[in-house]
Amino acid sequence: MKLIIIGGGFGGLRLARRLSNKPGFEITLIDRFNYHQFQPLFYQVATAGLDASNISFPLRKVFHRSRNIRFRMAEVQQIRTEEKKLVTNIGVFDYDALVIATGADTNFFGNHSMAENAFPMKSTVEALQLRHRLLHNFEDALSVKDEAELNKLMTIVVVGGGPTGVELSGAIADMKRFVLPKDYPELDFTRMKIYLLEGTGRTLASMDKRSSEDSRRYLEKMGVTVLTDSILKDYDGEQAILQNGTVIQTAMVIWAAGIKGNVPEGIDKGLIAKGNRIRTDRHCRVIGNMDVYAIGDVAFMEEPSWPNGHPQVAPVAMQQADLLAANLRRIEMKSATASLEEFVYRDKGSMATVGRNLAVVDVPTPKLHFRGFFAWMIWMGLHLMLILGVKNRFFVFCNWLYNYVTYDQNLRLIFKEFYREKKVEG
Amino acid sequence: MKLIIIGGGFGGLRLARRLSNKPGFEITLIDRFNYHQFQPLFYQVATAGLDASNISFPLRKVFHRSRNIRFRMAEVQQIRTEEKKLVTNIGVFDYDALVIATGADTNFFGNHSMAENAFPMKSTVEALQLRHRLLHNFEDALSVKDEAELNKLMTIVVVGGGPTGVELSGAIADMKRFVLPKDYPELDFTRMKIYLLEGTGRTLASMDKRSSEDSRRYLEKMGVTVLTDSILKDYDGEQAILQNGTVIQTAMVIWAAGIKGNVPEGIDKGLIAKGNRIRTDRHCRVIGNMDVYAIGDVAFMEEPSWPNGHPQVAPVAMQQADLLAANLRRIEMKSATASLEEFVYRDKGSMATVGRNLAVVDVPTPKLHFRGFFAWMIWMGLHLMLILGVKNRFFVFCNWLYNYVTYDQNLRLIFKEFYREKKVEG
Repeated sequence: MKLIIIGGGFGGLRLARRLSNKPGFEITLIDRFNYHQFQPLFYQVATAGLDASNISFPLRKVFHRSRNIRFRMAEVQQIRTEEKKLVTNIGVFDYDALVIATGADTNFFGNHSMAENAFPMKSTVEALQLRHRLLHNFEDALSVKDEAELNKLMTIVVVGGGPTGVELSGAIADMKRFVLPKDYPELDFTRMKIYLLEGTGRTLASMDKRSSEDSRRYLEKMGVTVLTDSILKDYDGEQAILQNGTVIQTAMVIWAAGIKGNVPEGIDKGLIAKGNRIRTDRHCRVIGNMDVYAIGDVAFMEEPSWPNGHPQVAPVAMQQADLLAANLRRIEMKSATASLEEFVYRDKGSMATVGRNLAVVDVPTPKLHFRGFFAWMIWMGLHLMLILGVKNRFFVFCNWLYNYVTYDQNLRLIFKEFYREKKVEG
Repeated sequence: MKLIIIGGGFGGLRLARRLSNKPGFEITLIDRFNYHQFQPLFYQVATAGLDASNISFPLRKVFHRSRNIRFRMAEVQQIRTEEKKLVTNIGVFDYDALVIATGADTNFFGNHSMAENAFPMKSTVEALQLRHRLLHNFEDALSVKDEAELNKLMTIVVVGGGPTGVELSGAIADMKRFVLPKDYPELDFTRMKIYLLEGTGRTLASMDKRSSEDSRRYLEKMGVTVLTDSILKDYDGEQAILQNGTVIQTAMVIWAAGIKGNVPEGIDKGLIAKGNRIRTDRHCRVIGNMDVYAIGDVAFMEEPSWPNGHPQVAPVAMQQADLLAANLRRIEMKSATASLEEFVYRDKGSMATVGRNLAVVDVPTPKLHFRGFFAWMIWMGLHLMLILGVKNRFFVFCNWLYNYVTYDQNLRLIFKEFYREKKVEG
């Protein structure tokens, strides 16, 4: 069958690899970028601990030995389900089966002022833009005399207390503790303030209560002001206004408080669930479409134990890719539909790192909670294993080792072409 | 004395390091970028062998232990020699002595069409832009049916047969031999043509005749068409027109055929020599200015053995920095002007790498010429030594080892924000 996979993230890439060199499949993998992005480490790119190339892997290289997979760098414009055609900026592709694995992007919930002024971090390039602004603000601070202006430049607000927000605010706190005062000896770093805003009552709300407590305690110890039950109402580039009326003067707001599925044109609006996700059945089939599938962050599947859909994390995407690969092989071998497997998510646990030597890990069965240095080691080992490519793994390890031993992040480069001025929400 | 150094390249950086923590000096180092660029390896960034960060070193980090040096990321707008003031985009600085170490940029000799359409490679970011276009052209080639259009996309013209042009065309030939056919199995790489144009009668014209012959032979063996006595007259983005009337259809022209000094505003036009360089005396003093110095690529000094000025290479800049550091210390210690040392360039030789296992090295005294694998080892060892920072050195070494063992360059990432559409000559 002619199979098209849109998206080379955790789900799409895994699916393509599972079907590599399998008889009967002629696969086209399409992505906007020519590389796979390792999203869990964006925050380290943003805080100058890792290089963008360390967590980006050229997709063409992955498939050097795959005879049945071709890659195309293209923007998807429309899916024409009735004609079984996919329209892109480089031409029209026919398919027998189509898999939508387009992931999710930042959701500013329609607030244009926030979209223009706050920094998102949902791509390698956005992580670099964040890094450049973060560093540039300190360069700017050197020539500022006005106290209020100076405080504003040295105040950072991270919105969203999920893993991304916790990891990012922790990494910025580590920069404040170990790196920035050495780089900018002329600045007074007691001025520097880091806020983490979370809308619910606790950080890492999707994890175990102990992880919430530990992460909050760690962050506060590291100098982050954690404000729970706090929702950002507006940000104009100078003032962050909270719903409870609090105003924080800040030149930098980082937005990690919501995502929405990247739904391509041509999908029936009636199929869109909360968070802009596409409703699928337990076979990852888009409801009412025999030949269109969706997996990963963009998909919304109801499972008895997950009535509100699965968490939008890599393991779900990868497990769905595994199931879909097996089912597509059954379909290709002309088995009856009845024999298709149904998806069951196996939650193996979740984790978040907070700072140097500090992380939290939850395992659901058997119910376990790890914290501190030991959790941090688990976190590092697991992320190293997940990174694609021996070379990237080695380089990330060397970077971590270097950063750990020297208390230094070495990649404080401002490439001006990456210096974002403005972005309007799509 | 209040010393301002403009430019953190080989010359400016060396001078600042020489005067670090020396009594009597209060130094401000100014650069447009916050990192030192290791120019000799730009071509490897352009051909996906090295990462931009491997050859970029944060300037603030260099001076963590220097109590008398502050760094400012700024654009210089004007030198006011009479008031002893330097005007920048972040404010006005006073100086007692000023050192211009601004280097050189690409010279298109006033040809706007060439400036708009040809790719220069005189900064890290330009090297990345070049990489992205290079790779993107092959992505584009995949959806092109027209034969002529396809040939155009797969033809690369490098202009200038100096070390940069030789190294770049050689590295592209290596990509053609070892990497690109694996990445783009659907393309026919016998179509791919690489031209190297040189205006004089030989490649590496500034080196020994044997180096010219060796480099040409190597390049031709690797599949590069070397055209000597060939000058590019015009390029409109589609056709490269040579002075002898030859027309090459090509989507990519890389310009390594000329540089001009980056002379800041405020320097008397009468002091500008050929190649837009500032005339200095043998003490690196800008002629007629007691407190303004120029070193490196931007400086033009006549020496008995170098009546047409020194070659614009890193060793000249570094040796001038050493001399100037010593002289400035003498001045600071109130020695008489008579005791100042005069600059004498010690040419320790020159080298260029052509491809895998292939390089040429000339040593003037004793007159020696090395070629092939041995020269290639010398080239690598020396460049590793010159790279700033243990970590960068280690990472460059690992990248080289990896590329050598696997016949692969691993960094074929297209970051679209770097994808240059147009540039007009400044």
